[in-house]
Amino acid sequence: MKTAITTLLEQRTSADQYDPTKSLSIAEIEELTRLATLAPTAFNFQNWKFIAVHTQAEKERLKAVAYGQPKVAQAAVTFIVCGKLEAHKGLAKAIKPSVDAGIVPQEMADSWVAMATGAHEGNPTRQRDEAIRSASLGAMALMLAAQGMGLVSGPMVGFDPAGVAKEFNLTANDIPVMLVAIGYPAAGNWPQKPRLPVKEILTIV
Amino acid sequence: MKTAITTLLEQRTSADQYDPTKSLSIAEIEELTRLATLAPTAFNFQNWKFIAVHTQAEKERLKAVAYGQPKVAQAAVTFIVCGKLEAHKGLAKAIKPSVDAGIVPQEMADSWVAMATGAHEGNPTRQRDEAIRSASLGAMALMLAAQGMGLVSGPMVGFDPAGVAKEFNLTANDIPVMLVAIGYPAAGNWPQKPRLPVKEILTIV
Repeated sequence: MKTAITTLLEQRTSADQYDPTKSLSIAEIEELTRLATLAPTAFNFQNWKFIAVHTQAEKERLKAVAYGQPKVAQAAVTFIVCGKLEAHKGLAKAIKPSVDAGIVPQEMADSWVAMATGAHEGNPTRQRDEAIRSASLGAMALMLAAQGMGLVSGPMVGFDPAGVAKEFNLTANDIPVMLVAIGYPAAGNWPQKPRLPVKEILTIV
Repeated sequence: MKTAITTLLEQRTSADQYDPTKSLSIAEIEELTRLATLAPTAFNFQNWKFIAVHTQAEKERLKAVAYGQPKVAQAAVTFIVCGKLEAHKGLAKAIKPSVDAGIVPQEMADSWVAMATGAHEGNPTRQRDEAIRSASLGAMALMLAAQGMGLVSGPMVGFDPAGVAKEFNLTANDIPVMLVAIGYPAAGNWPQKPRLPVKEILTIV
């Protein structure tokens, strides 16, 4: 018997065609984002920022810095999923809810901040890696959450990062990692593209 | 009513404690990997490599280059999830199953290879970004697939990349992006750590 997640993963496609007449509510956008943030991050950094672009005018602005890809404006919402540099600077705040809930002792939280600072401070490659890693984990959770709500999604890396940063007021620490269009499908989407055989990408030792 | 993926995301925790007496079969490891590769990648690059470390001796070798983290050896299997540089060089092969299935016309596949080569050749930052992005998308799918099978998972970035590369014969193009321990839980795991309020990480425009 297939698990629900197996079915979701097998049915998920990267959709290009969206019904432009159907929208998502603010509550739905917030719930999608909440679910995305249940993805893990190193140290529970939560070094991400989600910009949900859903009005027609803003979607057109985003499309203009995403090589004119029609789905950006046709989908109900297109998320700009950003990872943040200098994650260590946000860790004390990110972990505070866990301290307040009695899950992480304050001394442990302090030691994590010290460890993360030691690892990330002055290390731009590690900071960028972590920004991309966190945002990508969140984006995958976001796409599957959408799939579970009967929606389709379309991840994109084809955009102008500097243009996106300028148009949507990103800070120098916000790295736009992926655009994710989400909405109701229209006709003409791709089937899921076949993958390489598992034996070609897996080694078991 | 909650969707199945909502429940999975809400129940997923980053587990530290595993039952060391329980193992996974080769077929289970292959199925987990197959599901992980249903994650999307740019151009369908599939620029990833999974090394499933499951024998006790190999797990101990991995643990030694992962700062001695006990879960590496306690879990039934610890995956080394790698992303690959020079993804454009593997694209023709990665997309061939889609061409063979009649999903992607050969001319379109050729144009994707040309586009990807133009974007990635001589651009080490973009290559590394793509390696980390693809591997992270795959790792998130892997963790949720495990959760759906009644297993728990523990993602780790705390390891020595050079040591992992040496011990597990990675090529210069294989970037170890994350370790993911997977197995049956033992007592003493964390609850899911609370996240920042959605309003702090989401902007809707």
